Amino acid sequence: MNKLAVVAFGGNALLRSGQKGTYQEQLHNVEDTCRSLRSLIERGYNLVIGHGNGPQVGNVMLQHEAGRQLGIEAMPMDFCVAETQGSIAYLIEMGMRNVLGSSRNVVTLVTQVGVDAADPMFQNPTKPVGPYYTKEQADQLAAETGAAYREDPKGNGWRKVVASPKPTRINNIDIVKQLAEAGNVVVTVGGGGIPVVEEGSKVRGVEAVIDKDLASALCAVQIGADEFYILTDVPKVYINFRKENEQALDTITVAQAKQYLAEGQFAEGSMAPKVRAGIMFVENGGKECVITEAGQLDNPTCGTRIVR
Amino acid sequence: MNKLAVVAFGGNALLRSGQKGTYQEQLHNVEDTCRSLRSLIERGYNLVIGHGNGPQVGNVMLQHEAGRQLGIEAMPMDFCVAETQGSIAYLIEMGMRNVLGSSRNVVTLVTQVGVDAADPMFQNPTKPVGPYYTKEQADQLAAETGAAYREDPKGNGWRKVVASPKPTRINNIDIVKQLAEAGNVVVTVGGGGIPVVEEGSKVRGVEAVIDKDLASALCAVQIGADEFYILTDVPKVYINFRKENEQALDTITVAQAKQYLAEGQFAEGSMAPKVRAGIMFVENGGKECVITEAGQLDNPTCGTRIVR
Repeated sequence: MNKLAVVAFGGNALLRSGQKGTYQEQLHNVEDTCRSLRSLIERGYNLVIGHGNGPQVGNVMLQHEAGRQLGIEAMPMDFCVAETQGSIAYLIEMGMRNVLGSSRNVVTLVTQVGVDAADPMFQNPTKPVGPYYTKEQADQLAAETGAAYREDPKGNGWRKVVASPKPTRINNIDIVKQLAEAGNVVVTVGGGGIPVVEEGSKVRGVEAVIDKDLASALCAVQIGADEFYILTDVPKVYINFRKENEQALDTITVAQAKQYLAEGQFAEGSMAPKVRAGIMFVENGGKECVITEAGQLDNPTCGTRIVR
Repeated sequence: MNKLAVVAFGGNALLRSGQKGTYQEQLHNVEDTCRSLRSLIERGYNLVIGHGNGPQVGNVMLQHEAGRQLGIEAMPMDFCVAETQGSIAYLIEMGMRNVLGSSRNVVTLVTQVGVDAADPMFQNPTKPVGPYYTKEQADQLAAETGAAYREDPKGNGWRKVVASPKPTRINNIDIVKQLAEAGNVVVTVGGGGIPVVEEGSKVRGVEAVIDKDLASALCAVQIGADEFYILTDVPKVYINFRKENEQALDTITVAQAKQYLAEGQFAEGSMAPKVRAGIMFVENGGKECVITEAGQLDNPTCGTRIVR
């Protein structure tokens, strides 16, 4: 049987800062990423793709806000994440088809990801999302909806902040595994997944952001992936990053990775969550996690590897 | 093996005219529809769901238009359809889960549907979509983009018109069949599918509206469904509709259905395309097409049946 790899990349691989974000730009970007993934397929991997949606869901939430002036209801964040799962998957499916031809089916599951309603992160929402408001608007919205608002540190105004709870369950994960093992490229946990909580026999959506690397790591564990690739915008993980004694890491153990994390070697909101996702994968049975940039994937020894 | 049914319903089953279209309203509506579908599952059917997206994609296109003021690129219609596939599927999956419990997996594929670039409908776009413009704006947009614009017959302004080509190919249809036959409820061809054309070895999106009943009929044919249900807002199909001699139809043959169509018994944009989709299914190997309203599904002899 082919080896099975999960690859996670950010929404900014498609919607890059500095670009206008036109359809053609996004299509061009996604085809770039798909060309990089092709080398994994050519080396005989079955592939599952987890992707982010940061810039995309930000735009969708702003569009919803703008649409309110036309009398269209603005939807909560879980609904907006679902929208981006559809649109980003469409671009990835088209990009893969145009890069791979029809040698592999590419199939996307709209994916709910369960989180625990008692997750302590819900007590401390920190992830800013959606439009900026004045303090007065934010106070009023907070009173109306119960959501939390915080002042932007850069002085742009006030924004809603949501929690970033841990993913605990991926809907239809058995189907992801079955489809991937049959040779289909499977796209899932888009944007980290649509966050839902179970309440008795019911499921309901919650406004939250699930870290896409952590959701992809959970996916990789649960389908028994051999390798987990986290794509970013640097070829390797560094210690003493951007200092005189900067050092690229080739292979590190989980213990070393934890030590570097404890030393604060990796930036929060950037490399730290990636390293944590890699640790999570390897600690739960994965062979190795590779953190690198897409363009390096044609080199079988690329990136920084986290191993047991 | 269980019998296999495809059920198609409109986007207005979720986003009803006269309602504000809040999240709670849509969730309530979708759970209503899912409760009706439950009786098919209890009678032992495997189920594939095809749904429309008329009101939803209309709102998304307006939100994109409104978002342009904030500097966010408005995306073409195929991209907007993909967004609605994600969001509507999310609501359907949650509704089915809350109605069925976890007795059946519900799984949604983001679905591209192929159309023929030479489809004659592309020469005669008639389907109005998106925002209203003044004549001057419409002329300018037409000159810039090559799209066609027409004046709204009710005098609300000018709107883009797109073609409604015939669906010729459903992406990943083998996977739809396989998942449905394994007992999963499969959601696919949302909004009639994301319209794409093949150009050489490449695929590209096109701005078009694929009739969701016709796409669902093609799906039903290609997966070898036993029955095809088209849900609408009346319990049966009528001849002499709303006249003194109105008559509900129980079972009609394809030949009778064609005769009634030729007589103009069924309104275009309403019952006529549903009857045509039913004919298409039965003429291509389907046993029977049932046109009825969701609330009737617990009666095994409900609706109007089109048979060979």
